[in-house]
Amino acid sequence: MSDLVAVLARLEAGHDRILGELVEFAGIPSVSADPRRAADLAAAAAWVAGKLEAAGPFTVRTLPTPGAGVVYAEWLGAPGAPTALIYGHYDVQPEDPVEKWHSPPFTPTLRDGRLYARGVSDDKGPMLIPIKVAEAFFAERKRLPLNLKFMIEGEEEVGSRNLEEFVTRHRDLLTADVVISADGAMWRIDEPSLTVASRGLAALELTLTGAAKDLHSGRHGGSVPNPLHAMARLIASLHRPDGRVAVAGFYDRVRELAPAERADIAALPFDERAYLAQVGASAGVGEPGYSTLERQWTRPTLEVNGLWGGYQGPGSKTVVPSQAHAKITCRLVPDQEPDDIIELVVRHLEQAVPLGVRLTIEPGTHGARPASIARNHPVLKAAEAALEETYGVRPIVVRMGGTLPVAEMFKRILGLDTVYFSFSTGDEDFHAPDEFFRVARLHAGLAAWARLWERLAR
Amino acid sequence: MSDLVAVLARLEAGHDRILGELVEFAGIPSVSADPRRAADLAAAAAWVAGKLEAAGPFTVRTLPTPGAGVVYAEWLGAPGAPTALIYGHYDVQPEDPVEKWHSPPFTPTLRDGRLYARGVSDDKGPMLIPIKVAEAFFAERKRLPLNLKFMIEGEEEVGSRNLEEFVTRHRDLLTADVVISADGAMWRIDEPSLTVASRGLAALELTLTGAAKDLHSGRHGGSVPNPLHAMARLIASLHRPDGRVAVAGFYDRVRELAPAERADIAALPFDERAYLAQVGASAGVGEPGYSTLERQWTRPTLEVNGLWGGYQGPGSKTVVPSQAHAKITCRLVPDQEPDDIIELVVRHLEQAVPLGVRLTIEPGTHGARPASIARNHPVLKAAEAALEETYGVRPIVVRMGGTLPVAEMFKRILGLDTVYFSFSTGDEDFHAPDEFFRVARLHAGLAAWARLWERLAR
Repeated sequence: MSDLVAVLARLEAGHDRILGELVEFAGIPSVSADPRRAADLAAAAAWVAGKLEAAGPFTVRTLPTPGAGVVYAEWLGAPGAPTALIYGHYDVQPEDPVEKWHSPPFTPTLRDGRLYARGVSDDKGPMLIPIKVAEAFFAERKRLPLNLKFMIEGEEEVGSRNLEEFVTRHRDLLTADVVISADGAMWRIDEPSLTVASRGLAALELTLTGAAKDLHSGRHGGSVPNPLHAMARLIASLHRPDGRVAVAGFYDRVRELAPAERADIAALPFDERAYLAQVGASAGVGEPGYSTLERQWTRPTLEVNGLWGGYQGPGSKTVVPSQAHAKITCRLVPDQEPDDIIELVVRHLEQAVPLGVRLTIEPGTHGARPASIARNHPVLKAAEAALEETYGVRPIVVRMGGTLPVAEMFKRILGLDTVYFSFSTGDEDFHAPDEFFRVARLHAGLAAWARLWERLAR
Repeated sequence: MSDLVAVLARLEAGHDRILGELVEFAGIPSVSADPRRAADLAAAAAWVAGKLEAAGPFTVRTLPTPGAGVVYAEWLGAPGAPTALIYGHYDVQPEDPVEKWHSPPFTPTLRDGRLYARGVSDDKGPMLIPIKVAEAFFAERKRLPLNLKFMIEGEEEVGSRNLEEFVTRHRDLLTADVVISADGAMWRIDEPSLTVASRGLAALELTLTGAAKDLHSGRHGGSVPNPLHAMARLIASLHRPDGRVAVAGFYDRVRELAPAERADIAALPFDERAYLAQVGASAGVGEPGYSTLERQWTRPTLEVNGLWGGYQGPGSKTVVPSQAHAKITCRLVPDQEPDDIIELVVRHLEQAVPLGVRLTIEPGTHGARPASIARNHPVLKAAEAALEETYGVRPIVVRMGGTLPVAEMFKRILGLDTVYFSFSTGDEDFHAPDEFFRVARLHAGLAAWARLWERLAR
């Protein structure tokens, strides 16, 4: 451990330089959902590859997929030591509504110890950390404490739609002992945490069509189908008034929590009132019979993410529109299957569609199964120790409401468990305006990753 | 009547020139709902004033309002003859969705005897007709058969929001025996028609706010209020599943149709299947117990004209949005009052708003009462004769689903009845993409207005 001090000192001395690199990285508008940003996506991949090349004697390649390329790097010069596959992504969420940002989303701006920019917390900041830690090890020791493979993709925010085929094709290349994910997020800023489960995802988009064209609501209103009325009725039918999802069979395969699991969650430090104040909501809602944390971590959901039709401009326009649209995602828990859930939701929609409108459904991004890791997994234990050493307190063990579909995929295709080791925090407004990453987390993350690798090498 | 032949011949010889003028007029994007088009609105007013100046010895003025100006012209050189106040409007509906037009909305394009452009049927074409008829009378006779006052406003498509104050202030200036409206529309192309009633209008916009900001639907979904779910439930609550409006008290002041009125409507030539095929709807819907024409003409409605919130872009964005929005208009029948109806709808919304979201309501454009004219009104009879002379068949008597709020206002403030004498047709897609005006209607309208004035002078 003696020369880890030197590695840590080197990382500390590099804090400002590393922050400067993150500013540069976050300035690239690599929005994977927007086909017009394909060149920016490629620029972000090239930036990551360049940083890996500069970090040390990695073999670096950008491997093609039908979509955005995967940046792959490896260094296998530690025979006898374990091999970790580091996962992260260089793409980001769309920035809209752009008018709600206090600084431009792709002009990274430092305010009060926070760096504001789209993607800076999800996942550019957390993802840059292990690259800079490897650089410090190489600079101090000319070697790493363990064998590393980096796999940094560019389609995480659009459901990693080409990754399954990629991982299947490159199964041999990706052989490892464990996946360590720089993506994910710590639960909150108050205490370090480790995540042992994440929810799955299933998505679809629906369109209702009434008349063949927009009609004047004075002349035709009240006698022709209004797809906005039909959509409201259809969307409202998806939940019971008490908040439970009303889709037949939706909960059939959900594993109920054991009393001990519920007790563990209830024992966590969580102040519901403070949480609601933080998100600015007047009341918690959701499935009856479960606490807020249980709803977020252990229960499936169906959420409408977008809903639109008719006139949205200034003033009024007396129109009965021809079409209404909605985007829906479900979060899944063991043992729900994405394809089964989509089928149940589609069946519900088909049966509930009101008279006079026509329903069309487009499948959403590729679904994802829920994922989890055993509480006594040795790499999870090493991560726990590295965090305790860095923060001086024992990390708490939590679950994740969001989805990290790659974890389930790594298990299924590569047989590998995934340990989430991200230094973003759940309150950092990823997927919303004013996303930020705390500079202190960048610093803590650099030290913690160095400690984790050193522990895994033992 | 002998020299009416000369007037009619002169109008016929001018057909192409008049169509050319309409092309020029319809090229001005005078969208009153869009504040960025204020200069275009003023340009349209100036264009109308210029045409009236050119038509003959009118006194022409553009009178200011807090919004768009009113073009006013008068010629009172026929003592002993009646005075008609001609009403029309130079503003147009917004052109969106602009991508659904087959030719640019403000590049008037002639195809198959139809001139395509936003506002060409509502109301620029019909409104230009009486100006050109006056020009022909002046050219042939140096005088008109009756006294005329033109009042052409620029805010009809935003609810004529300054017109009531304008008419009140200029009550003396606007003294007349009758209003003849160039706005409105004939029922359909198959037979000439006269409209004896129109529905009123009441509008509002509502916003539901959940959390203070957009939230990640993975982390927070299922535990915080989703205003899109709440909006769907709230909008769905406004109608019963059978189509009747569910707002308490909504129908209380509605005058039920007399059996004779229902019989008159049932006797009209109307093929429901052909109507549904024309608008491209698979089924008629609406209030149970009434026919399609009764629903359109004699029953009140509540229609959502716009509904939006969350992500509408390409791909998916897993967000629980902070806000959802809806625009609503109601069409009213005797004896419903716009303010009362808004109050009832607001009360319904306030009582039905789901837990966890906050409701805010913005009043819409100024409301309008329903309006009607006596079936034996002498000007209506003259209009009937002028149409029969022009088309060779007796016009049918119909009602109007849309709103002409000015008719009710002219009655209340000026004590004047309004005769609708428009040559647009209900199928001409005003308020929708590909609005058009039939060139044959322009020609028929020129002859019919000349005949109507000549008859009124007797």
